[in-house]
Amino acid sequence: MAKNNDKKVEAITSMDEDFAKWYTDICKKAELVEYTSVKGCMVIRPYGYAIWENIQKILDSEFKALGHENVCMPMFIPESLLNKEKDHVEGFAPEVAWVTHGGSEKLEERLCVRPTSETLFCEHYANIVHSYRDLPKLYNQWVSVVRWEKTTRPFLRSREFLWQEGHTIHATAQEAAEETERMLNCYADFCEKSLCMPVVRGQKTESDKFAGAVSTYAIEAMMHDGKALQAGTSHYFGDGFAKAFGIQFTSKDNKLEYPHQTSWGMTTRLIGAIIMTHGDNNGLVLPPAVAPVQVVIVPIAQFKEGVLEKAGEILEKLKALGIRVKLDDSDNSPGWKFAEYEMRGVPVRIEIGPKDIENGQCVVATRYNSQKQTVSLENMLETLAAKVTDLLENEIPQGMFNNALENRKNRTYQCTTVDEINKALEEKGDGFIEAMWCGDEACEDKVKELSGVGSRCIPFEQHQISDKCVCCGKPAKSMVLWGKAY
Amino acid sequence: MAKNNDKKVEAITSMDEDFAKWYTDICKKAELVEYTSVKGCMVIRPYGYAIWENIQKILDSEFKALGHENVCMPMFIPESLLNKEKDHVEGFAPEVAWVTHGGSEKLEERLCVRPTSETLFCEHYANIVHSYRDLPKLYNQWVSVVRWEKTTRPFLRSREFLWQEGHTIHATAQEAAEETERMLNCYADFCEKSLCMPVVRGQKTESDKFAGAVSTYAIEAMMHDGKALQAGTSHYFGDGFAKAFGIQFTSKDNKLEYPHQTSWGMTTRLIGAIIMTHGDNNGLVLPPAVAPVQVVIVPIAQFKEGVLEKAGEILEKLKALGIRVKLDDSDNSPGWKFAEYEMRGVPVRIEIGPKDIENGQCVVATRYNSQKQTVSLENMLETLAAKVTDLLENEIPQGMFNNALENRKNRTYQCTTVDEINKALEEKGDGFIEAMWCGDEACEDKVKELSGVGSRCIPFEQHQISDKCVCCGKPAKSMVLWGKAY
Repeated sequence: MAKNNDKKVEAITSMDEDFAKWYTDICKKAELVEYTSVKGCMVIRPYGYAIWENIQKILDSEFKALGHENVCMPMFIPESLLNKEKDHVEGFAPEVAWVTHGGSEKLEERLCVRPTSETLFCEHYANIVHSYRDLPKLYNQWVSVVRWEKTTRPFLRSREFLWQEGHTIHATAQEAAEETERMLNCYADFCEKSLCMPVVRGQKTESDKFAGAVSTYAIEAMMHDGKALQAGTSHYFGDGFAKAFGIQFTSKDNKLEYPHQTSWGMTTRLIGAIIMTHGDNNGLVLPPAVAPVQVVIVPIAQFKEGVLEKAGEILEKLKALGIRVKLDDSDNSPGWKFAEYEMRGVPVRIEIGPKDIENGQCVVATRYNSQKQTVSLENMLETLAAKVTDLLENEIPQGMFNNALENRKNRTYQCTTVDEINKALEEKGDGFIEAMWCGDEACEDKVKELSGVGSRCIPFEQHQISDKCVCCGKPAKSMVLWGKAY
Repeated sequence: MAKNNDKKVEAITSMDEDFAKWYTDICKKAELVEYTSVKGCMVIRPYGYAIWENIQKILDSEFKALGHENVCMPMFIPESLLNKEKDHVEGFAPEVAWVTHGGSEKLEERLCVRPTSETLFCEHYANIVHSYRDLPKLYNQWVSVVRWEKTTRPFLRSREFLWQEGHTIHATAQEAAEETERMLNCYADFCEKSLCMPVVRGQKTESDKFAGAVSTYAIEAMMHDGKALQAGTSHYFGDGFAKAFGIQFTSKDNKLEYPHQTSWGMTTRLIGAIIMTHGDNNGLVLPPAVAPVQVVIVPIAQFKEGVLEKAGEILEKLKALGIRVKLDDSDNSPGWKFAEYEMRGVPVRIEIGPKDIENGQCVVATRYNSQKQTVSLENMLETLAAKVTDLLENEIPQGMFNNALENRKNRTYQCTTVDEINKALEEKGDGFIEAMWCGDEACEDKVKELSGVGSRCIPFEQHQISDKCVCCGKPAKSMVLWGKAY
């Protein structure tokens, strides 16, 4: 591809040279974020925010199709409310931001900025849930939360981040358990279909559960560098929160019972996951479903008669199909434009110049695999429109998904001993380890200590690597997915 | 209308008896909000939030059509950043919430939770605006902000509220001034068309400007009780913030210049405005454009053969037209359902029973004027669909707007002396006062002191009530709209 006049691309660090720097280069150069004077808090710029808006739109309609309703809770939690569930407060209190003053007055009780909103939803449920007729409540909210992290990185770990948090409450344990799993599957389907990112679905070990949960499910994705990124979690709470917050309802047979709860969340770290799953040394590579611009039209020799007219016709044709398309007729060179939209990860580029028009065709380039093809302009642009639609809906998503899956397969290692883990990591680089586990936390800790990989999850899809624990050699209970994590 | 079995309606305080209590009754009984243990912070419940989502959807697409892009700034502002613009900090510092600790550690510099984000946008602009090629930036964000108010009321005045804040930066003063006015008109059109709420467009007096602004424009709406509610504001900043924050750009002729800025905002108080503009003693009355449910179908004698089938057909027919329609086939009585959806302000109710089906018709009731009409079910439901569409798009919005305008006309009093103001308020009740003003702040204060009404705005549409100031009798500069305000 043309690299002349190509300042932006030259400025990116190569992925192989320094993966972390490559990542932050993309965040900055694709204009996704900008730092602020508050450490760990960032500006999400228009291009980054447009990706988030597309993520929101798809997820929100999935949630609503499953019967969920959006609400909005306050951002403040009084300290006494946060303290009501023991495990929960232990997990979150060390990392919350505290508001102590309103104007010039000291508050009687300090308030934390929500790190998550279980306590607020519980207080609300205690007010509004009285009878089995009030159940279930299937609520969600789109807000930002704050966790006072020490080490921060754009999207991946920030002190404030955007997310959705679903909070549901049910009459029975079974219904709540089913909801927990349903939402994990909803997340996994979204990642695989809309973000072209294969994920492993599984359960967190005891030591890795959400503070206050009975069980936590998660989806784990593999990044380019072989590290794991937790893309979403779904928690089953049983009736623990209901007991701590005094939420009770009268059942059909007139008994007073405790309801059962769940919560589940996905965050702006998904944007980090997109970068590190699909990006390359030319910049971002965006899945069509969430790309702010799906197709960019770059006119060649645009001052020549007929070029901008034809480019405009293509623009209108694709727009009418609901495609997010942009015509760049600025006075920058085509080479500059190529590099710019490669950096921004626009899935499809259409090049159209005088020669193309003469030949009744245009050039269609796909970002993810750097392929070019010529497509006919005849048939009232119908051929081109069909081609572009197929690229955006089928060919590109499938291709991107397959590439990511291939990478995961190549970097997933079956191991039966800790030595094998260390050898695999050393020889093949970071990746997912599939290894058996006896279920003892001591072994989990020891594997981490000896090899640097932690348990990511106990995958729902189990296969037997051996019958012994990778660490102690005692009989194994399950196969665990291990890895280094973001 | 049937009032049997009608618990909800009986529970509302009458508007004439106690307007404030009528208002909070609707907030609670229509399930718009619920209080929390943090004073002034509320839960926006699904029905209330769905109204906000509809407001967002319409406004957001208007903003984008005018070229604006969404971004997201942090929620925290370091004290030193807030202090950079003198007037701005004086206006806001007394009412911000301060974060002093992160986890167990005291912060080196305290952070306020944003009361508004001019300072954050300025910091960002200083980073990204360097050349005339970088201008304009037309940004907006949908977030919540915090102002530590003493007296709070749901939607109208809360410590945390949801809003959008637009922040734009331009190469010239003229462009920024035009943007300020364009956005005020955008707000006014939205209020009049989508919320059926007539507004007066005007400029705030000096004493009532936004902290740090050169000029503030506002739209003022009249509530049922004759009080004014400021529904939106738009501010022109000149280059004051740019100078305070060191934002400069190189112009086309290579000079270093200061850019000019604006900001503009609308908040969840619009929901309060909807309640107090259109509501009645049966509850909420929602404008069709923002109603979560636009049409409710209530089957009569639903156990009789054919009733639910026909109701289902109507449901599908209206759904296919993109109408937000709900069929309530729960086992509550029709009377209960009538009262319930009246309370919730659903614009159109369709009643369908065995007799209606026999006669090939159904009953269509409109919430805002309590009218009923029979509509034919023939012609494959086309007649009904056309009728409902016309009601939602034309008849109801126009009727609601006209009623509100009529109320405003009846309660707008032209006065030439403070005595006349007092007499009008005493005899006719609270309302808008149109009276002339010399431009002197002392007179503005004195009118407030003597009659209780403050200046709402200097309307763009001026008419001459007299040629003398209502207070001092000196030559008048402009007609001011005065009133008591929410």
